[in-house]
Amino acid sequence: VLNMACCGSCLCCQCCCCTEGETRTPEELTILGETREDEDEILPRKDYESLDYDRCINEPYVEVLEGLDRKKTKKYEAVKWMLVFAIGVSTGLIGVFVDFFVRLFTQLKFRLVGKSVEECSENGCLALSLLELLSFNMAFVFIASVLVLIEPVAAGSGIPEIKSYLNGVKIPGIVRLRTFICKAIGVLFAVAGGLFVGKEGPMIHSGAIIGAGLPQFQSITFKKIRFHFPYFRSDRDKRDFVSAGAAAGVAAAFGAPIGGTLFSLEEGSSFWNQALTWKVLFCSMSATFTLNFFRSGINYNKWGSFQLPGLLNFGEFKCPDGDKNCHLWTAVDLAFFVLMGVVGGLLGAMFNCINKRLAKYRMRNVHPKAKFIRVLESLLVCMLTTVVVFMASMTLGECRDLAPPTANNTTAIVSVSANEDVNSTIRQFFCSNRTYNDMATLFFNPQETAIHQLFHQDATFSPVTLLLFFVLYFLLSCWTYGVSVPSGLFVPSLLCGASLGRLVANILKMNLGMHIYSGTFALIGAAAFLGGVVRMTISLTVILIESTNEITYGLPIMITLMVAKWTGDFFNKGIYDIHIHLKGVPLLEWETEVEMDKLTASDIMEPNLTYVYPHTRIQSLVSILRTTVYHAFPVVTENREYEKEFMKGNILVSNNIRFKKTSVLTRAGEQRRRCQSMKSYPSSELRNVCDEQVGVEPAEEGQDILQQMLERRHMPYPNLYPDQSPSEEWSMEERFRPLTFHGLILRSQLVNLLIRGVCYAENQSSASQPRLSYAEMTEDYPRFPDIHDLDLALLNPRMIVDVTAYMNPSPYTVSPNTHVSQVFNLFRTMGLRHLPVVNAVGEIVGIITRHNLTHEFLMAKLRQHYITI
Amino acid sequence: VLNMACCGSCLCCQCCCCTEGETRTPEELTILGETREDEDEILPRKDYESLDYDRCINEPYVEVLEGLDRKKTKKYEAVKWMLVFAIGVSTGLIGVFVDFFVRLFTQLKFRLVGKSVEECSENGCLALSLLELLSFNMAFVFIASVLVLIEPVAAGSGIPEIKSYLNGVKIPGIVRLRTFICKAIGVLFAVAGGLFVGKEGPMIHSGAIIGAGLPQFQSITFKKIRFHFPYFRSDRDKRDFVSAGAAAGVAAAFGAPIGGTLFSLEEGSSFWNQALTWKVLFCSMSATFTLNFFRSGINYNKWGSFQLPGLLNFGEFKCPDGDKNCHLWTAVDLAFFVLMGVVGGLLGAMFNCINKRLAKYRMRNVHPKAKFIRVLESLLVCMLTTVVVFMASMTLGECRDLAPPTANNTTAIVSVSANEDVNSTIRQFFCSNRTYNDMATLFFNPQETAIHQLFHQDATFSPVTLLLFFVLYFLLSCWTYGVSVPSGLFVPSLLCGASLGRLVANILKMNLGMHIYSGTFALIGAAAFLGGVVRMTISLTVILIESTNEITYGLPIMITLMVAKWTGDFFNKGIYDIHIHLKGVPLLEWETEVEMDKLTASDIMEPNLTYVYPHTRIQSLVSILRTTVYHAFPVVTENREYEKEFMKGNILVSNNIRFKKTSVLTRAGEQRRRCQSMKSYPSSELRNVCDEQVGVEPAEEGQDILQQMLERRHMPYPNLYPDQSPSEEWSMEERFRPLTFHGLILRSQLVNLLIRGVCYAENQSSASQPRLSYAEMTEDYPRFPDIHDLDLALLNPRMIVDVTAYMNPSPYTVSPNTHVSQVFNLFRTMGLRHLPVVNAVGEIVGIITRHNLTHEFLMAKLRQHYITI
Repeated sequence: VLNMACCGSCLCCQCCCCTEGETRTPEELTILGETREDEDEILPRKDYESLDYDRCINEPYVEVLEGLDRKKTKKYEAVKWMLVFAIGVSTGLIGVFVDFFVRLFTQLKFRLVGKSVEECSENGCLALSLLELLSFNMAFVFIASVLVLIEPVAAGSGIPEIKSYLNGVKIPGIVRLRTFICKAIGVLFAVAGGLFVGKEGPMIHSGAIIGAGLPQFQSITFKKIRFHFPYFRSDRDKRDFVSAGAAAGVAAAFGAPIGGTLFSLEEGSSFWNQALTWKVLFCSMSATFTLNFFRSGINYNKWGSFQLPGLLNFGEFKCPDGDKNCHLWTAVDLAFFVLMGVVGGLLGAMFNCINKRLAKYRMRNVHPKAKFIRVLESLLVCMLTTVVVFMASMTLGECRDLAPPTANNTTAIVSVSANEDVNSTIRQFFCSNRTYNDMATLFFNPQETAIHQLFHQDATFSPVTLLLFFVLYFLLSCWTYGVSVPSGLFVPSLLCGASLGRLVANILKMNLGMHIYSGTFALIGAAAFLGGVVRMTISLTVILIESTNEITYGLPIMITLMVAKWTGDFFNKGIYDIHIHLKGVPLLEWETEVEMDKLTASDIMEPNLTYVYPHTRIQSLVSILRTTVYHAFPVVTENREYEKEFMKGNILVSNNIRFKKTSVLTRAGEQRRRCQSMKSYPSSELRNVCDEQVGVEPAEEGQDILQQMLERRHMPYPNLYPDQSPSEEWSMEERFRPLTFHGLILRSQLVNLLIRGVCYAENQSSASQPRLSYAEMTEDYPRFPDIHDLDLALLNPRMIVDVTAYMNPSPYTVSPNTHVSQVFNLFRTMGLRHLPVVNAVGEIVGIITRHNLTHEFLMAKLRQHYITI
Repeated sequence: VLNMACCGSCLCCQCCCCTEGETRTPEELTILGETREDEDEILPRKDYESLDYDRCINEPYVEVLEGLDRKKTKKYEAVKWMLVFAIGVSTGLIGVFVDFFVRLFTQLKFRLVGKSVEECSENGCLALSLLELLSFNMAFVFIASVLVLIEPVAAGSGIPEIKSYLNGVKIPGIVRLRTFICKAIGVLFAVAGGLFVGKEGPMIHSGAIIGAGLPQFQSITFKKIRFHFPYFRSDRDKRDFVSAGAAAGVAAAFGAPIGGTLFSLEEGSSFWNQALTWKVLFCSMSATFTLNFFRSGINYNKWGSFQLPGLLNFGEFKCPDGDKNCHLWTAVDLAFFVLMGVVGGLLGAMFNCINKRLAKYRMRNVHPKAKFIRVLESLLVCMLTTVVVFMASMTLGECRDLAPPTANNTTAIVSVSANEDVNSTIRQFFCSNRTYNDMATLFFNPQETAIHQLFHQDATFSPVTLLLFFVLYFLLSCWTYGVSVPSGLFVPSLLCGASLGRLVANILKMNLGMHIYSGTFALIGAAAFLGGVVRMTISLTVILIESTNEITYGLPIMITLMVAKWTGDFFNKGIYDIHIHLKGVPLLEWETEVEMDKLTASDIMEPNLTYVYPHTRIQSLVSILRTTVYHAFPVVTENREYEKEFMKGNILVSNNIRFKKTSVLTRAGEQRRRCQSMKSYPSSELRNVCDEQVGVEPAEEGQDILQQMLERRHMPYPNLYPDQSPSEEWSMEERFRPLTFHGLILRSQLVNLLIRGVCYAENQSSASQPRLSYAEMTEDYPRFPDIHDLDLALLNPRMIVDVTAYMNPSPYTVSPNTHVSQVFNLFRTMGLRHLPVVNAVGEIVGIITRHNLTHEFLMAKLRQHYITI
């Protein structure tokens, strides 16, 4: 306790420094002549791989396309619908599973300990009850913690990881089956173990893993039943399914299918894909109603009805039928909600700040040490939490009167039936009949029940109890988030906030005598604190509206969340963003700041390129692949002096020239092609246009004219130096000589070509090179073989690989003077992985990846920009 | 009546032909050797202008950027928030206004006529009552119809127009103040006149106009208070505000802020813009709650509370408190919902088919004639509707028992308080006490009331009444939509569907004795029919869920809508899409079909270019602008033979060469620049990298090396032929000679430059050209002056205009072999207007606009593709 309390207090006073110096603009920093010298500064790590959302439409893909007719497309679409349905149902079932066991274990625990407490309150053997509770909790938490040791990425809520994934960053192991098992079972025990953690975040992560895994598994099955459309084996499809799964997770967790859909849109925001969004919504609906169906069946034995939406739901807010003066909220209350939003934002910022410092402390002092230290920390937290819960319940509670069952007063009360539900979960520890122990009611119950109590209990809680509860809960849950167990943050934050909101309601009602509905204030308090911590916007608003099942709460919730976010953003970022930042994930924000438009693509691109030629010798390829770590290589031809000499010569060079000629489409050539195709086309109008033009110039042999034109114009001819890979000894002139850009090829594709022996001998034509199908190209997805696994002895290093059929011949490109906002928009919206920068004459001058667009990188470049001008 | 009935019947039997021949694939069509020879075929019109969502970051814009600091950005952001709030509130107020007067007029009408009917049922003077009703209705409809004559685009629901606008097509007059006034007042009278039209569509249109207009007006005000940031004067900002306004319209109409946001996302789907979506949601919330606030205040005199969400709301679906066996729906019911979805889809398709034929008939036979014919048609519809309503109410109704107020049966009933509300709007015409006339209750009430009756009346309607009601309503509302009055389609469709759903419920309950909740079936029927007519997906689902304020209806509504859409799509398109198609709007779908990927950018681009040079003589510019209708011109330099000769010569040529040199960034040049800037940069690590490289090659004068390299490499030099505009006499070789692409300039920008005299004399340097600021460039938005308004006498045709500072130097481009899906994605997502196609050596080979990406154009190209291969 001392450790933590001290830690908390010393952190609090440093909180002002937590504002990350964002208030100083780059200009000021430049004037001050210093770059930020924070040794804690965590820069985005370079070793995360990106996902590629852009389709690579190369020849194997086109072959698949040509084989597609409308019927196959429909079949494929139907499979997709079935898959999202399956993902939804599975996610719902996982929710049912987790919920069932948590409920089972919790009930068992509370029943046994409760009985013991009742007995002991007479015998004075309370220590024994505490021991009993401790042994339960520590055992559960131990299991959860050991599971996380097996798979470390299963720790925490998983939302930062899923957010990163949907943003386009592949974090290793994040969507594996092992992670899934550890997470689902781990969270079950963490919650049952009485830690201040929620099961919502892990549900989202679990859903995402199901989304990633199920279609892959299915496609193996499909191969058996001869469904030859290997289409789900790409980053693009996987990410689509992951977003459906994550949405299903949210939908199951909160009973919020629309909120779930918006969550995955908000986080996985590539372009608005109508068909995908519609599937995601269906997936979410499936998840919500699967959960709903089974929970209604299991808990109430009402199979076929749908009574319990979501793992977490807020119950029904409604005025008693008879009471005409009761309003859930009025226009006047909005002012209080704004204030509560400010307070929530401040407290949330404090929470984040403390948690960030704790996380940094852990990274430095706990993570390098032996792994069992982490288990010990979990157990320590568990022990402390248990002791606090027990002690507070026993000693700090007040005995409060229950509200009369048929209240006739004009203050807001909930309806009778709801009242009964709520009253069944009160705790009477040491209190006489018709009174209850308010602290115990909050602490000695599952968290969802405590939230219900705060939202719907029309009897009062003492202000002291609420304040104490808030402080204890705040500190403990702050410490808990980051401990090595699967742990959600939604429920603890909601509970914290709700107690605060209820406190405000108490004050307004008792001290100012206002006619308000306490439940609304508790809800708004919960929204304010949660908003202050996580800083989500659209999706959180919708999730909360759906959880309350009351559209009229839309405005107050939205305003509260807005105010909380703005207040909090003044100090630091949301908790998930903080943890993403701590992990060094190169996340791309939603948009760049306006200032960044002072930079252009040429300022931020990486100009040192490692490239391959359309036809390259195997030895060059292997050396490039072994000595670099790049994931993609531009395919280029060189514009050298004296190119003409290379035209005569060996066949290899003419291969390249042929490639260059066919790859350069000229307006004249295109016009000729169109006219020729017109002639065979029935429409007379179009033909007339062409005849006229063809008449002007007699048709010649297309290829020859092209040849002629190219030569006459002193076009830079492409060349091939297959034996001469870029060397360190080259002069700068050599290193940065002009390169005409033709396409992009991925490392995985190159390795695949090498492994499958796609090459031809020098004295043969490139047409003799074996061809790979789309299925062969994607067979090893997502784990492609490494270049170092390749047995070089099997390869003839003098053989030549023609990569033109396998490269992406038309990636999106930008010109060097494109401004950063446009580059960023294109990159983020299209979900790109590599964006070549190509100048006005078609030469590649650099390449932009995710790392060139992170906030940190752009800020550094901007500072440099201010220095140089 | 005869006219219509005959029309309806003859149309119905032709309905199979309405499936648009979509079932034949292009391959089949090719094999059959025919292109579709439908003389009714309506191709997208070429004369609609597109909106440009892409920012043109030229020099004036950069100047504005440079002046921006963080404080100004925040201020600007705050203004945006204020504006969306204002838009929301105004839209809400319009809703209140329309609702108030509709209610006033309708109450007046029904009170007077009802009284007359009661009197006349004894005296037998019913004809007098009918006349009274007729005169009311015809007067109201006459006003509505005359308003539409004043501004013809105010006719109809406005959703097709707003959908087109958000898709990026500017339909003239669609967001004007006059349209707004005609629409808002017109819909009021159309609804009050008893036509079968809703006020929801026009609300959305009104909201959109407010969104378009308010910020423009404000920015004029801001100029007075010296807010010099002329940023809202662009297509991009206007479209953003329009989407906020449209969302607010939906939100106000249905009390569905989330649904509204999703509506504008679904229709206005450019890339997911987090900040914008958040603002749109806020705008929707403001609209909903403004409406809510005022309606609660005006109707219930409860100022400060929020009791009446939306113009249209569905009331509260709930089981009576005591009834434990009652479920709103169970898993078994889902099977019926699917069947109802199929039926709804079929009926919706029939509705659309009939309506399409009517619309075509009108276009051919009514629109070419005098305008008053349209007014006559409206009056005819009104007369017929009134007579049908009156006759049906008087003669076809059955007297049914009211449900006992304290029902103790186990079937589903609504709660007592709701029951009271519903029972207050029954009609007793000719029926004894404790019974009511069911047909009159449906027909002789405002439509919203009738919907409430069908949803919540626990007494029964006779099946015959329901069927008759459906048929009459179906035919009349089908005829009405398209008549020249402002008319929404949501409410009539909902009412049609609800009667059908209630019919199903009746059958299931009475004949099969199932325990079901009738209201749910009515709701699902309404959803099915509406879904079958409009075929919206995500947004409609959410709108209906929000209107019911019951999240548990999510699954049934979604499934019904899905099934209805799929069934309907088998026959024809949604009603809005049909009307968009009839208008010939070049709408871009959400995505291209997979087949289209057989085409590439070079197949679909427009290769005939009209272009300008970086420095062009005024006479050339004027002639280009006067002889073409293009809205944008590529800025190019030519790659001619013997370019070197032009280097010496007049200053103009060297100007262009200078431009070419600076515009071509080479890797070597960029590297040198970076190294030089590194030297002044404190970071030691970066400097080391550079020092090394600089050491390899001694630093020379950058400009000279570039010059040298360019010359040595026989770079194609740009040239200028300011006096030689593209001529018709040129040979094909000449016409399609290679052109290096440098940027895009809009017609409006060129005209602006000419008008403001931005040019320099031949013997001066281009630096002497006057410079325009961003404010001056955008001052005339959105109505730029026309080239024909220009007084040529004021211009010296020999002067030269340097357009490089004003063009868009870095539009997105694609390479000619980019596949159509990628082109489409880029174009639609980024909201482009012109997409240049640039080949591997930087030459422009064509340009793609919206017209090259419409479904019809792509299909034609695909057919051509099949012919040529």
